[in-house]
Amino acid sequence: MSGPRLSRRGLLAGGAVAAGGLAATGGYLTGRGTAPGESEANAAEQPGTVPFHGVHQAGVATPPQTYGAFVAFDLRRGTTRESLGRLMRLLTDDARRLTEGRAGLADAQPELAGIPARLTVTFGFGPGLFTKAGLDHQRPLTDLPEFKGDRLEERWSGGDLLVQLCGEDAVTLAHALRLVVKDARDFATVRWVQRGFRRSPQAQPPGQTQRNLMGQLDGTVQPVDLERAVWISGGGPSWLKGGTFMVLRRTRMDLEKWDAADEAAKEFAIGRKLADGAPLTGDGENDDPDFTAKDFAGFPVIDDHAHIRLARVEDPALRMLRRAYNYEEDVTPDGVVDSGLLFVSYQADLARQFTAVQERLAGSDLLNEWITTTGSAVFALPPGCTETGWIGEPLLS
Amino acid sequence: MSGPRLSRRGLLAGGAVAAGGLAATGGYLTGRGTAPGESEANAAEQPGTVPFHGVHQAGVATPPQTYGAFVAFDLRRGTTRESLGRLMRLLTDDARRLTEGRAGLADAQPELAGIPARLTVTFGFGPGLFTKAGLDHQRPLTDLPEFKGDRLEERWSGGDLLVQLCGEDAVTLAHALRLVVKDARDFATVRWVQRGFRRSPQAQPPGQTQRNLMGQLDGTVQPVDLERAVWISGGGPSWLKGGTFMVLRRTRMDLEKWDAADEAAKEFAIGRKLADGAPLTGDGENDDPDFTAKDFAGFPVIDDHAHIRLARVEDPALRMLRRAYNYEEDVTPDGVVDSGLLFVSYQADLARQFTAVQERLAGSDLLNEWITTTGSAVFALPPGCTETGWIGEPLLS
Ligand code: HEM
Ligand code: HEM
Repeated sequence: MSGPRLSRRGLLAGGAVAAGGLAATGGYLTGRGTAPGESEANAAEQPGTVPFHGVHQAGVATPPQTYGAFVAFDLRRGTTRESLGRLMRLLTDDARRLTEGRAGLADAQPELAGIPARLTVTFGFGPGLFTKAGLDHQRPLTDLPEFKGDRLEERWSGGDLLVQLCGEDAVTLAHALRLVVKDARDFATVRWVQRGFRRSPQAQPPGQTQRNLMGQLDGTVQPVDLERAVWISGGGPSWLKGGTFMVLRRTRMDLEKWDAADEAAKEFAIGRKLADGAPLTGDGENDDPDFTAKDFAGFPVIDDHAHIRLARVEDPALRMLRRAYNYEEDVTPDGVVDSGLLFVSYQADLARQFTAVQERLAGSDLLNEWITTTGSAVFALPPGCTETGWIGEPLLS
Repeated sequence: MSGPRLSRRGLLAGGAVAAGGLAATGGYLTGRGTAPGESEANAAEQPGTVPFHGVHQAGVATPPQTYGAFVAFDLRRGTTRESLGRLMRLLTDDARRLTEGRAGLADAQPELAGIPARLTVTFGFGPGLFTKAGLDHQRPLTDLPEFKGDRLEERWSGGDLLVQLCGEDAVTLAHALRLVVKDARDFATVRWVQRGFRRSPQAQPPGQTQRNLMGQLDGTVQPVDLERAVWISGGGPSWLKGGTFMVLRRTRMDLEKWDAADEAAKEFAIGRKLADGAPLTGDGENDDPDFTAKDFAGFPVIDDHAHIRLARVEDPALRMLRRAYNYEEDVTPDGVVDSGLLFVSYQADLARQFTAVQERLAGSDLLNEWITTTGSAVFALPPGCTETGWIGEPLLS
């Protein structure tokens, strides 16, 4: 899930729940079944926790949980490399505790910590963080450009520090979110919070491709080799080895207009069938699309501007890892719901793997008829850490 | 769950999924396992659907699902009893379809209908509905008064027509919500939408009392006899027999202030222990509180203004049924999260079962130090209907 684990000792010791009064129940995500001395294999199978420690941070290769909350912070004036280091030590410590079902260090509600519910806490550094902390010489990324068609709003864009919280329980997530913002309070202000959801594991077996709010099966084509496609192995700064780059773009769907399109138009825009996600040239979701196929009139079956043609990356090792969440917010008096996708991708090389694709899509994706991007942010995710380390240590210590 | 079922035929016929392309998987909440001809007992055990038809509406006695969305509508000028009848026929028809995993009548996204995920759709009539439809002589309720301490906001209060959507999957709920607001568009405007959540069944076994965002076990004491406490049996208008009254109050929690209180103060305010929900005079969650017990200094162990003392109703048959959802919304730059409780209760007699208790609480509940009610609404829920009927038919046809 989060790559090879360096050691399981810290995790195992943390498996027991600190807060009193919660009934342990076999099979439920309390994270309780794991006791010191159990075999690693056993521990790894516990459904309630996702290991926090490892070569890579959890929450990227982790099969997406039902809930996602993304919190972006702006560092306060006067931030130094040292103060940032203190913040990251604090946040890492609480993240390891919470993901193990233990209360945070200064947790005022320890009774809410006992059900980790596959919580992951993942940290990312935005471009501004490096500047503010006097680390511009180490800065591995710049803000994304504004792409054609973007209608970016400040309130959903940018940010110096990202904390991504994912998990299977909204109460657990709410508790973790409050602890994180309280930890960060002296160091940073909250720039934005974006919350999203996916189908729950009771509703659809994990591992199956899910439908987004446009009704499409979304997430079929993914990289085959995460070591090459997602994790940074060399080339960049050494503190980033084992890390990745994350893009979060908030994209509104005009579902009223989408409703008015017929099934054929919807399928034409994507290049895949609505019913089963098969390419228009194939029979099953996992069939390879045939981009050369022509219809009886000589036109390409998968249109030149279909989403999957423009988004296609031929080398599967260079594909981005997509891990999107749906969002749904205000409803107007006339019953128009503000909904869309928190598009989230992870890739080792922003320019080649993300920006190149996004530029093709921005220009002429048929889907643009129904979608508008209102937020954009990008972060460098440092590698994972050991039980005694903290996220960002190689950069900040 | 929703009371005796009048007949299962319609439901069984609807058990098969209309939308193509969704893989059927044993044990998951697709509602697929049920085929015409299966025994009723079998059908009732399907975890994926909650029967829509019955003597009572579903979503009241139904064990609370993970997600709740409450949509209040204002009827448009010119509403008549006839037009309201048309609206309720339309809404009922889509509700029965969606809860059975079938697409709505004018569903532009049938592919999102296939996973009912224990969806319930419940309808309620606010005081204004009766006036607007010329049915004042049948009006069984008035708006709740503003109670001491209330800080009511229009945007969370009132409403002529309520649609309550509850279920185990947020994508299913989002789809149902859009269908409902589109159905209602010609007849009504959306006044407010309030969304809430509870712990998920993977995180905590259904049937256990859950913690709210204050960390308390909330929902321990409930009525023992729903026929007397919740369902209206006589006395009121005949079209309401088998229905109930619903209260929805949006109550913000000042969690920053709550964090600053110590465990003893938190327990004192409620009269129960934080760890296990036991009364301060007892050892287990389900022990009866001893309101006469005194401490060594002669003071009551459960304070005179403790929440459970003031909220207490001696006759268990007269208790309200509480079915609350947590909410969590905006976060300020300083990291203060707007969170609280969508307090929801159902009772046969508003004045005796709800208002009397709320008045005691409003006056002097210790909990008031940390909570503020910003929204208030009340609805009469008609009884359930058969496969050929519709909700509200006895009043509106
Ligand atoms: C609301 C916005 C979007 C929607 C609704 C959407 C939907 C889809 C759907 C339905 C598919 C086909 C199934 C699959 O392989 O997952 C797909 C594929 C894909 N999308 Fe998107 N997408 C959106 C935005 C984006 C963006 C912003 C990017 C990247 C810049 C992107 C990159 C891709 C890629 C790389 C594929 C796989 C293409 C292939 O090789 O077949 N998508 N998307
Ligand atoms: C944010 C607001 C509220 C919170 C956090 C809260 C919390 C609690 C808690 C922790 C309990 C004890 C456990 C239990 O029996 O569930 C309780 C009991 C109860 N509450 Fe509340 N409550 C709130 C508002 C209300 C309101 C508005 C009412 C009704 C007007 C109410 C009525 C009751 C009743 C009837 C009981 C059971 C009392 C008994 O007989 O022991 N509560 N509440």
